[in-house]
Amino acid sequence: MRESIILGIDPGTRITGYGAVKGSSHGLNAIDFGCIRPPASLPTSERYLILYESLEKLIERLQPDAIAVETQFVYKNVQSAMKLGIARGMVILAAAKKKLPLYEYAPKRAKQAVVGNGAASKYQVQKMIQMLLQLNSMPEPEDAADALALAICHLHHSTSIGKLFL
Amino acid sequence: MRESIILGIDPGTRITGYGAVKGSSHGLNAIDFGCIRPPASLPTSERYLILYESLEKLIERLQPDAIAVETQFVYKNVQSAMKLGIARGMVILAAAKKKLPLYEYAPKRAKQAVVGNGAASKYQVQKMIQMLLQLNSMPEPEDAADALALAICHLHHSTSIGKLFL
Repeated sequence: MRESIILGIDPGTRITGYGAVKGSSHGLNAIDFGCIRPPASLPTSERYLILYESLEKLIERLQPDAIAVETQFVYKNVQSAMKLGIARGMVILAAAKKKLPLYEYAPKRAKQAVVGNGAASKYQVQKMIQMLLQLNSMPEPEDAADALALAICHLHHSTSIGKLFL
Repeated sequence: MRESIILGIDPGTRITGYGAVKGSSHGLNAIDFGCIRPPASLPTSERYLILYESLEKLIERLQPDAIAVETQFVYKNVQSAMKLGIARGMVILAAAKKKLPLYEYAPKRAKQAVVGNGAASKYQVQKMIQMLLQLNSMPEPEDAADALALAICHLHHSTSIGKLFL
């Protein structure tokens, strides 16, 4: 039975959550999670450079088999869509450089996979992830929990099509 | 009197125009222009990787002092805004990696700088650039002309504040 490490990434202009989950015949295990938060005082382009280089280091360190990235389809306005596009671009490029397959999931889909309800609250997602991954406390910040949810979502999805660890 | 090479970039999801212009006491000269057009048949992430790596090579070869990038503020819809954000992200990252200053200009501003009219047609922009840069023919494709316009726009702008080549 194949093991598989999925790195979930919830990109944002201020804070980008990440969470790596290993799926195997023993179930799901959190490898690492946290967030990338470039100092808000830096110029925009330097903040994106920090985001990109942090993603490169994460991929180097965690050696995931695939990346699951959150893709919003509903935005507050075009300006926020454009900014989120830039952040997503950093994830796309970091994955492409390492020839890692990249999968996109809407936030609703990740919540559905973890809580069984696409409209679940942030708190429900965090609580459910704590349980599923047997963590001592709820994953913080929310962005890291969302990233773990994306990784779990992808593992569930892959499982259902029998590709990854079943 | 200082010389200055500005690389204009008009990023797009299918085609990205570029144009490098040297400003000096002798006036404006086109150093190079053209476009980056990753094969449409490739997966999205590979297309962005090609865009990014092409930008890196351009910067390496042309050694610009600054980059002038087109920034749309009006989009057809949030999906196109998000996609353009990804393309813009490649430009932002390529500039940040080389510690090159990046300046943003709206298309209207670039047209204003070249034709004297922010609502000028593509054809007018191409014709005017041919004249200003003493090219044998109109710069093609339009995206390359737009990129040259951005570079000229930045040189004009810098001139007016006496920073670059006057």
